[in-house]
Amino acid sequence: MRIIFTVKMDKILLGHGSGGKLTADLISGLFRKYFRAPQLLEGRDAALLEIPGSTLVFTTDSFVIHPLFYPGGNIGKLAVCGTVNDLAVSGARPLFLSAGFILEEGCDMKLLESVVSSMAAEAEKAGISLVTADTKVVEKGKCDQIFINTSGIGCLLPAYRKPGHQYEVTCGDSIIVNGFIGDHAMAVLQARNDLGFSSGVSSDNACLHELVASLVHSGFRLKWMRDPTRGGLGTLLNELALQQHCGVFVEETAIPVRPEVEGLCELLGFDVLTLANEGKLVLVVPEEETAELLQQMKAHPLGQYAACIGRITDQSPGRVVMLTGVGGRRIVHPLLGEILPRIC
Amino acid sequence: MRIIFTVKMDKILLGHGSGGKLTADLISGLFRKYFRAPQLLEGRDAALLEIPGSTLVFTTDSFVIHPLFYPGGNIGKLAVCGTVNDLAVSGARPLFLSAGFILEEGCDMKLLESVVSSMAAEAEKAGISLVTADTKVVEKGKCDQIFINTSGIGCLLPAYRKPGHQYEVTCGDSIIVNGFIGDHAMAVLQARNDLGFSSGVSSDNACLHELVASLVHSGFRLKWMRDPTRGGLGTLLNELALQQHCGVFVEETAIPVRPEVEGLCELLGFDVLTLANEGKLVLVVPEEETAELLQQMKAHPLGQYAACIGRITDQSPGRVVMLTGVGGRRIVHPLLGEILPRIC
Repeated sequence: MRIIFTVKMDKILLGHGSGGKLTADLISGLFRKYFRAPQLLEGRDAALLEIPGSTLVFTTDSFVIHPLFYPGGNIGKLAVCGTVNDLAVSGARPLFLSAGFILEEGCDMKLLESVVSSMAAEAEKAGISLVTADTKVVEKGKCDQIFINTSGIGCLLPAYRKPGHQYEVTCGDSIIVNGFIGDHAMAVLQARNDLGFSSGVSSDNACLHELVASLVHSGFRLKWMRDPTRGGLGTLLNELALQQHCGVFVEETAIPVRPEVEGLCELLGFDVLTLANEGKLVLVVPEEETAELLQQMKAHPLGQYAACIGRITDQSPGRVVMLTGVGGRRIVHPLLGEILPRIC
Repeated sequence: MRIIFTVKMDKILLGHGSGGKLTADLISGLFRKYFRAPQLLEGRDAALLEIPGSTLVFTTDSFVIHPLFYPGGNIGKLAVCGTVNDLAVSGARPLFLSAGFILEEGCDMKLLESVVSSMAAEAEKAGISLVTADTKVVEKGKCDQIFINTSGIGCLLPAYRKPGHQYEVTCGDSIIVNGFIGDHAMAVLQARNDLGFSSGVSSDNACLHELVASLVHSGFRLKWMRDPTRGGLGTLLNELALQQHCGVFVEETAIPVRPEVEGLCELLGFDVLTLANEGKLVLVVPEEETAELLQQMKAHPLGQYAACIGRITDQSPGRVVMLTGVGGRRIVHPLLGEILPRIC
C-alpha cells in the first residue's frame, strides 16, 4: 500500500521552503499553474536557453514594496515591469526572466496566488518567459509577506548601437520624458492609508520595451536612455549630468505633473523630482529629431503625455539647473536620505 | 560654493535603499571596492554581455540562511557557491552573476562588508563575474539582517550533451556521491547555538564546477547530475526515481557520513538523508565507468570521499529503497515539512 500525502494549505508554512514535499506541492499546485515555459517545466535547477549569437543584456532587481497592492499594480506586476524596463532602457528585447520568492511563514496562499497570477499576466503581455525560479520561506516576522527578486536576460536590438559606438551627448540635445512623473510614489503612498484621503492617482507601472523598440526601429538617435524609478527624475538627471560631463537644464513648467500629484506634493512638502516612477523613460536626442520623436511617442499609449523638458548645455558640467515656474533658477540635487521607503 | 555631502555610516539606513545619494555612496564605498567587472562599473541598470553563440544556462536562488556566519562559510560565500553549483550540475561553465541584496535598516556595515568580501573572494575563485546588482533596504524588523539573491548565467560545456541528447538512465547504472553528507546542516545547526556543545563539523560549502568540468572533459557519460541541497540526498534520490521512472536502490553503509554527523543525527532524531548539503553532487553513470570515475573524483579535493552508494533498478519505479545497516530494507521518502528552516 502506498500512502500519498495530499496537503491543501491556505497559508505558507516553513515546510514550503524545505526543498521537500511541500515545496514540490507549492511548485506544482501554484507556480506551474501560471508559468509554463518549457525550460521551467523541465524542473531543473537552471534553465537551458538557446539565444542566437548576440549581445546579451542581464539585469536584476529585488522588490520589497509595501503595501503589496496599490492602485495600478502590485508587487508581481512591478517585479516583471521593473526588470523588463531595465532591459528596455538598455536597448534590449526582453527574453527570459527568473523569479526568486522570499515568503513569510503564514503568508496567505490566495494573496500569493494573486501576486503570481499578475506576474504571469504581465510576463505574457511583455513576451518574456519565466524560465527558472526559487522559493524560500522565513519565520513569521522575519520578512514582510512577500519579497520578489527578478533577473532578466534580453538581447540587444540590432538597430540599437552598442556601447562604445554611442552617439555623444552634445550641447543643445533635447531631454524628453514620456509623461507624468510622480504617479507611482503617490499611488503607493495613498495605498498605505497614511493619508486620510484619496486623490485617485494610479501608479504608472508599465512595461516600456515596446515604446523603446518602436523608437529604436524608427532610427532615432537615442543618445542616452534611462528609467527614473527610485530617486525620481531629479536624481536621474544628476546621473546624466555626471556621467556625460555635461550641464543639464530643465524647465519646471515643461515637466508633466498631474495637478493632483502637484497638489499632494505641496501639501506634504515633497519634491516631485524625487518621487519614484515605474513607467517612465528619460531620453536624450538631437534637437533636430525632437519634434518627430515627440510625435511618434505621443501616438503610443505610454507616451501620450511625452514632453521635451530641457536640454544639454555646456554650462556647469555635472549640474542640473532648473528654471522654476516663477522664473528663478535652482540647482536640482540628487535625493539624499529617504522620503518614501519601500516604494519598489 | 558647492556643498559636498560626505556621509560615513556604520549602520545601514533606509536611505541606503533610496536610489539617491546614500545608495550611490553604498555602491561606491562598499560594493565597488569588491566587485570590479567592467560591465558592473559602467553603472547601468543592466549589464551587456558578449557570449559567443552557445546554449546558455540561467539560474536563480535566494539565500536567507540563519545565522549569517557558520563554520565553513557565510551567506556571501553560500550565495556564490549555490548559484555556481546550479550551473555546474547543469553541465555549464559559470560566467556571470547578479546579486540582489535586501538589507535590514540598522544592519551593521562591517557585517555587510565581510559578507560582500566573501562573495567577491568566492566569485573570483570560481571565475564568475558579478556584472549587475541591486540593493533594497527595509525597515528594522521587516527582514533578518541580510537576504541575498544571486542569478547566474553559464554556457553549456561543449563536451556535455544537450537536453534531448541525454544518455538514458538504465538498470544497473551506478549512483555516485562525492563525499560526506549532512555536514552543512549540522554546521549551521550548531552555529545557531541551540545545542550546548560543538562537534567541530564544518559546512561542505564549496563550488563544484571544476570537479564537474574535469569529469565532463574526461568523457564520462554523466547520465544524471544534481546537487542535494535543501531536502537532502533522500529527496534528491526521489526526484531521480520520479523523473527517470526508475527504481533507486541504495545501501546505507555505502553512504559517506561523518561519525560526528551520524552521532548528532542519532541524538537529535534527524535522518541524515534529509539534511542539506552545499558542496555535494549526485551522479548516475554506467556501471562500467564507475571505478575509473571514482578514481578520478578521489584525486580532486572535493571528491576525496566519493563513493558509489547504489544503483538504478527496474523494481518499484519511482521509489527509493535502502538496504539498511542492519540488513533490512526501507523506503526513503522525500522530506515532508521542515526540520531545519533557513538552512540556505
